[in-house]
Amino acid sequence: MRIGELSRASGVPVPTIKYYLREGLLHPGELTSATQARYGEDHLERLGLIRALAEGAGLPLARVRTVLEAVDRPPSSPLELLASVTEVPGEDDLDRSEAVALLQRLGWDDVDPRSSSVLALARALRSMSEAGFAVEPEHLLALGRAMGSVAEIEVAGVPLDDPAAAARYVVLGTALVGPVLLALRQVGHVHASLQRLGG
Amino acid sequence: MRIGELSRASGVPVPTIKYYLREGLLHPGELTSATQARYGEDHLERLGLIRALAEGAGLPLARVRTVLEAVDRPPSSPLELLASVTEVPGEDDLDRSEAVALLQRLGWDDVDPRSSSVLALARALRSMSEAGFAVEPEHLLALGRAMGSVAEIEVAGVPLDDPAAAARYVVLGTALVGPVLLALRQVGHVHASLQRLGG
Repeated sequence: MRIGELSRASGVPVPTIKYYLREGLLHPGELTSATQARYGEDHLERLGLIRALAEGAGLPLARVRTVLEAVDRPPSSPLELLASVTEVPGEDDLDRSEAVALLQRLGWDDVDPRSSSVLALARALRSMSEAGFAVEPEHLLALGRAMGSVAEIEVAGVPLDDPAAAARYVVLGTALVGPVLLALRQVGHVHASLQRLGG
Repeated sequence: MRIGELSRASGVPVPTIKYYLREGLLHPGELTSATQARYGEDHLERLGLIRALAEGAGLPLARVRTVLEAVDRPPSSPLELLASVTEVPGEDDLDRSEAVALLQRLGWDDVDPRSSSVLALARALRSMSEAGFAVEPEHLLALGRAMGSVAEIEVAGVPLDDPAAAARYVVLGTALVGPVLLALRQVGHVHASLQRLGG
């Protein structure tokens, strides 16, 4: 199909498609003349993916690029894939003791305390305390258990026999299931409030 | 304290403090001369709150303002507070049938399908399918149950006897606990991957 048809079929405006082509997020079409190209189902599928990440999951374009690169050039083994998830960043002077203590209580002490995920947890806990907002330690533990079962369900779904499919699953799942979880929590708040207030 | 001391104590630069004062996010200090003012502990606390919301939770400034307004002018009853959470937006032509079917399976059919939380869920589910990413219906149900227990824990913590405290808890909790949950999920991914790969 021509670029105009690709635009109608995908719902992405022609100038935006041209921008994605220039930026290399979308692969070039097959040239049919010096100024025209033909696009296929693969372009339509890729535009759906870019749109879901950029508009649906609300990722900035730089992060969309990183996700697409991981999908295009997947690590060759599940262990490498795991390494890319547990990537250890440079040291940081942030106090991680509260995060590490929580992980110990959850029985997650196999996680390297220097990993970026523990850093993210320490940052999020610090923001709460800086705002003067407190969650009871027992409640925090219960929230951790609930998110642990979320993570377990997600990791169980990763197809380990196919590294490319596994990489696609991990990067897309992390980006796209997050908003679903937060929306489920939001609906859950309404349901739990109605239950508690006897509405 | 003077504005310079407030800046040192809070870690917020003087020009940023002046910006917050101009924008009305921070209340004025007590004038001690035509050009100088004195600030107190309440200013320090407020700056901690603004910083946690803007930098910690990563909210844009317009959303920080909305959260602060809800904290400053709380609804007068738990029912009004709930109404502000379940606010019904204008109709939308988005297909909500998948979201509604999921809520029915979860036993959450007391939630108005037109509410903004159901809209958010329908949008997030659509983004997944547009990206060609599928989660097994049974897994989606299990994720919903886990987020339901998260929401239940959070709603149980709302202090219903004090509307101002309840409003503060709901708006800050929604903004600040979200990043903690996503970070816990991220650490949980690492833990579950290590378990599954037998690391």
